[in-house]
Amino acid sequence: MGTETIGIDFGGTSVKIGLLSEVLGGAAPEVVVTADHDGPEALVDAMADVVAALRERCPAAAAVGCGVPGLVDVPGGVVKIVTNVPGWEDIPLRELLAEKTGLPAAIDNDANCMAYAEFRHGAARGYTDVVALTLGTGIGGGLIIGGELYRGSRCAAGEIGQMSIDYRGKTGPYGQPGGLETYIGNRQIGELAAARLHDKPEPEGGWTPKALAERAAAGDAAANDIWIEIADYLGCALASVAWLLNPQAFVIGGGVAKAADLLFEPLERRVRSMVSEVISQDLRILPAQFGNEAGLIGAAALAAEVS
Amino acid sequence: MGTETIGIDFGGTSVKIGLLSEVLGGAAPEVVVTADHDGPEALVDAMADVVAALRERCPAAAAVGCGVPGLVDVPGGVVKIVTNVPGWEDIPLRELLAEKTGLPAAIDNDANCMAYAEFRHGAARGYTDVVALTLGTGIGGGLIIGGELYRGSRCAAGEIGQMSIDYRGKTGPYGQPGGLETYIGNRQIGELAAARLHDKPEPEGGWTPKALAERAAAGDAAANDIWIEIADYLGCALASVAWLLNPQAFVIGGGVAKAADLLFEPLERRVRSMVSEVISQDLRILPAQFGNEAGLIGAAALAAEVS
Repeated sequence: MGTETIGIDFGGTSVKIGLLSEVLGGAAPEVVVTADHDGPEALVDAMADVVAALRERCPAAAAVGCGVPGLVDVPGGVVKIVTNVPGWEDIPLRELLAEKTGLPAAIDNDANCMAYAEFRHGAARGYTDVVALTLGTGIGGGLIIGGELYRGSRCAAGEIGQMSIDYRGKTGPYGQPGGLETYIGNRQIGELAAARLHDKPEPEGGWTPKALAERAAAGDAAANDIWIEIADYLGCALASVAWLLNPQAFVIGGGVAKAADLLFEPLERRVRSMVSEVISQDLRILPAQFGNEAGLIGAAALAAEVS
Repeated sequence: MGTETIGIDFGGTSVKIGLLSEVLGGAAPEVVVTADHDGPEALVDAMADVVAALRERCPAAAAVGCGVPGLVDVPGGVVKIVTNVPGWEDIPLRELLAEKTGLPAAIDNDANCMAYAEFRHGAARGYTDVVALTLGTGIGGGLIIGGELYRGSRCAAGEIGQMSIDYRGKTGPYGQPGGLETYIGNRQIGELAAARLHDKPEPEGGWTPKALAERAAAGDAAANDIWIEIADYLGCALASVAWLLNPQAFVIGGGVAKAADLLFEPLERRVRSMVSEVISQDLRILPAQFGNEAGLIGAAALAAEVS
């Protein structure tokens, strides 16, 4: 591992903080609840308290990294906006964190942290050209290009969920037709399941991807067909990404990815049926190694770069 | 400009060879006709003769670069396959060129050469993150990422023409549905024009993009509508690329691009209507500066890297 670093995963409902070695070893990260804090400054104070406690246990911890669920100006160290958390607009988080923790700090978008975690410590270790994505309510993504995170001109790259798979499709929030997210976001999967399985008993808690996976795994052919349909939509987008970038690996995480073979088997078939042999040659389609802790691990791994 | 280098544009019907400074200054490149040559070795001999003649005129010429219309293993210096030219399979062109010319040599795919030409000397000068594409019979592309050509795992990146804009679209040559090329390749534009303008006199030579542009420029509203439709298809693909890569510039060349404002005006509108403000912020959609000589210039510019 080299240097010990501290990772912070700033989520919409909770903030997780942990030491990288502990997290990789399976120890539970400390948790701070954001709802308790009045604005960015107070939240960073609370983060700094946990960081201080971790440093007492591990004085060697040399830097802190934070993943943020929003738009981050990485070169400037500024959080431009956090979706759904008020008060987070143009906040110089990198400087605040460094000041309040006394450690060198790094910040990045949460999808980039996830991609970096898988690249440095997870499923994509050893690859240099990787496209990572998380399937959930939305679909986020991060790109590793030539062995480095690629963020694009304004740190807004990797938005695979907004890519169109149908130029005549339903218009998305930014005006684009047929965005991938409007087909296979968690809510859309729920709607698809409710429509296709309307003659079957709805699971308690509704048609979550998990419930749909359980139903398919139990032998329900119609539920299985929905996973094939999800693989069709996702495969179409990934094949386009593969034509554009010729990557070595896709790494797929998030709730939907937990459907495992139900999704990955038809997805693999679909993507390979849509690209040339040379593009298919090196391409691996891998389930993410990390689950909820991916953001934390990635943030800590990015901190190692500034320690 | 720095070093003088020699560029070779290996085309399907002719090979163009020239000194970079002369080409940028507007002098005509030398030409060798491939049809006269019996296989790769003989063609490289002919290339070397022209290179030798150029070196007599310009002894300072320090390296030679060659753009190839096919799949090139750039790190290995090997042409894997040339589309439509028999005998070109696994040819170590970089070594052959270096041997026969006595100069350090570089080789690359022709679309990469085009992208590199625009990046180093053309429309995308000064940008570090650029997606270049050429619209023609097919649609080729090249990527500049972080100020360098990005080729992907097997040097097969940049195939924008194969990206899908409709998951239910017509199946393309590699099994992918709704590939961009199947909507706006030159032949498809001709078919579109023939169908939409069937009550109008067909131009001599048929509905080429050039003829369609002339008709629209002359005030034919239906012809103009076809350009808007072309911009719709292309815009959908470019918006997806912009969501994925958040580039600073698209550079668009090739025959269709010569329609200029007829294409670029609706295209600009379309792309910006389909991406977020932050992605739109830095994005420029630029016509290519170089026409047919882009491959030659790019090959010579790549040679400068090995001189």
